[in-house]
Amino acid sequence: MTDSPNAAICLIGDELLSGRTRDINLQSIARFLTPYGIPIVEVRIVSDEQDHIVKAVNELRSQFTYVFTTGGIGPTHDDITADAIAAAFGVGIGEHPEAMKILSERYAAVDTEFTPARRRMARVPDGASLIANPVSGAPGFQTGNVFTLAGVPKIVEGMLGDIGHRLQTGAIVKSVTVRGAGLREGDLAEALGGLAEDFQELSLGSYPWFRTVQDHGVALVARGIDEAQLQQAADKLEALVRAQGVEPERLAGEDSQGGSGGPRPGVD
Amino acid sequence: MTDSPNAAICLIGDELLSGRTRDINLQSIARFLTPYGIPIVEVRIVSDEQDHIVKAVNELRSQFTYVFTTGGIGPTHDDITADAIAAAFGVGIGEHPEAMKILSERYAAVDTEFTPARRRMARVPDGASLIANPVSGAPGFQTGNVFTLAGVPKIVEGMLGDIGHRLQTGAIVKSVTVRGAGLREGDLAEALGGLAEDFQELSLGSYPWFRTVQDHGVALVARGIDEAQLQQAADKLEALVRAQGVEPERLAGEDSQGGSGGPRPGVD
Repeated sequence: MTDSPNAAICLIGDELLSGRTRDINLQSIARFLTPYGIPIVEVRIVSDEQDHIVKAVNELRSQFTYVFTTGGIGPTHDDITADAIAAAFGVGIGEHPEAMKILSERYAAVDTEFTPARRRMARVPDGASLIANPVSGAPGFQTGNVFTLAGVPKIVEGMLGDIGHRLQTGAIVKSVTVRGAGLREGDLAEALGGLAEDFQELSLGSYPWFRTVQDHGVALVARGIDEAQLQQAADKLEALVRAQGVEPERLAGEDSQGGSGGPRPGVD
Repeated sequence: MTDSPNAAICLIGDELLSGRTRDINLQSIARFLTPYGIPIVEVRIVSDEQDHIVKAVNELRSQFTYVFTTGGIGPTHDDITADAIAAAFGVGIGEHPEAMKILSERYAAVDTEFTPARRRMARVPDGASLIANPVSGAPGFQTGNVFTLAGVPKIVEGMLGDIGHRLQTGAIVKSVTVRGAGLREGDLAEALGGLAEDFQELSLGSYPWFRTVQDHGVALVARGIDEAQLQQAADKLEALVRAQGVEPERLAGEDSQGGSGGPRPGVD
């Protein structure tokens, strides 16, 4: 597994730290990376301050195969990510000819002045390659193993379309989820711990949900590469739930793509 | 500001990194801390592996006044946060008498066996103090400047009720948001940069939203401690939006408590 690629994400923005905005880009990137077999190993959220961004990006890019940043590449004074990435790599920054061409044509087409502020969006670290933005034109960029994306979720999704061909792939992790409504973790913990011993090559997790006194339960998730082992484990997980007098609900998929019935906010 | 308290959060769980679960606890903690004047400066999300947790917690607790962890304190084999915190502090871990009392009484009351797995939830690092859990009983705990909370959002909210009295307070940051529907950041960037120069004690941010071709715009946010300055800045921000022929929408509040009209998922 040591040669298998992995990734980290650095989400940039005061609005995320203050709780004003709830991030959704982590989920988009995680789902995008799933079929490439690239797990996300760490996420950091940092403020719009160059020192913080530089420190986080440098620590992450030295530890992980790929780093994705989101946010801070627009035209306003608080958009400092391009400068921070250049500083992190110790390179200069300037207007990229291709980015200038994309932006000037785009603004000309909609009869909008290509102002100095908008020209800021053409500035990328020296040596970076562009990442196409099919939504609003202004490109992201790749610097070494770091992909710098926008913050607006729709634009992030668009930019991911120009990244797959740059990635090396790993083994695809699949998952099976067995849900037991009304159960508590303590009802299952001992038997589950035994199963975790039996299936050492899988990762078995237990995720309780508790919305109301009526609506609570436990989702048992097995993750791994070997499909046959996964199915065996899922059968055992179902038996474990049935032994508590509850009919299990089983869901399968590539991990992070509906493995537990899709993202369900507020469920741990 | 150097003596003003701040905080970091360490969200623990494979299910967050895989995208299976979308975190909401960051927002709960950010809103809880707002009236104490304690900003969140960094967030990390790490997997359910002891080495990762120990590294993140030790890096964060040495840099920030307070650290909050969420997740991994239930009864199952993958709940390893208590052990990781003990390892991070280099202390032992054992069953806390008060936690044993809470749990044994609780399970007795509902005629449920207090199994060895459930006893795991009474294990806390040596020297830690308990954090009450009014939702499901099993306590969190404070070790030095680190508060270890559950992962289930409802339980996190309950535990926050037993933390305020332990915190030193800082200056409360308020915010005013001026929204300009239909505008693009590039329309405002230069004038906004000028305002940021004029109001050096405030933080001015620009957050575009782009849901559809019809529904997009820019939210301009001023944040700071001085109410009079904030109102002056807000007037200027409104004028800036009006100069583009758009009627601004103004929203005020303590930061992270509705400053931009409450959390709006998918809006950057």
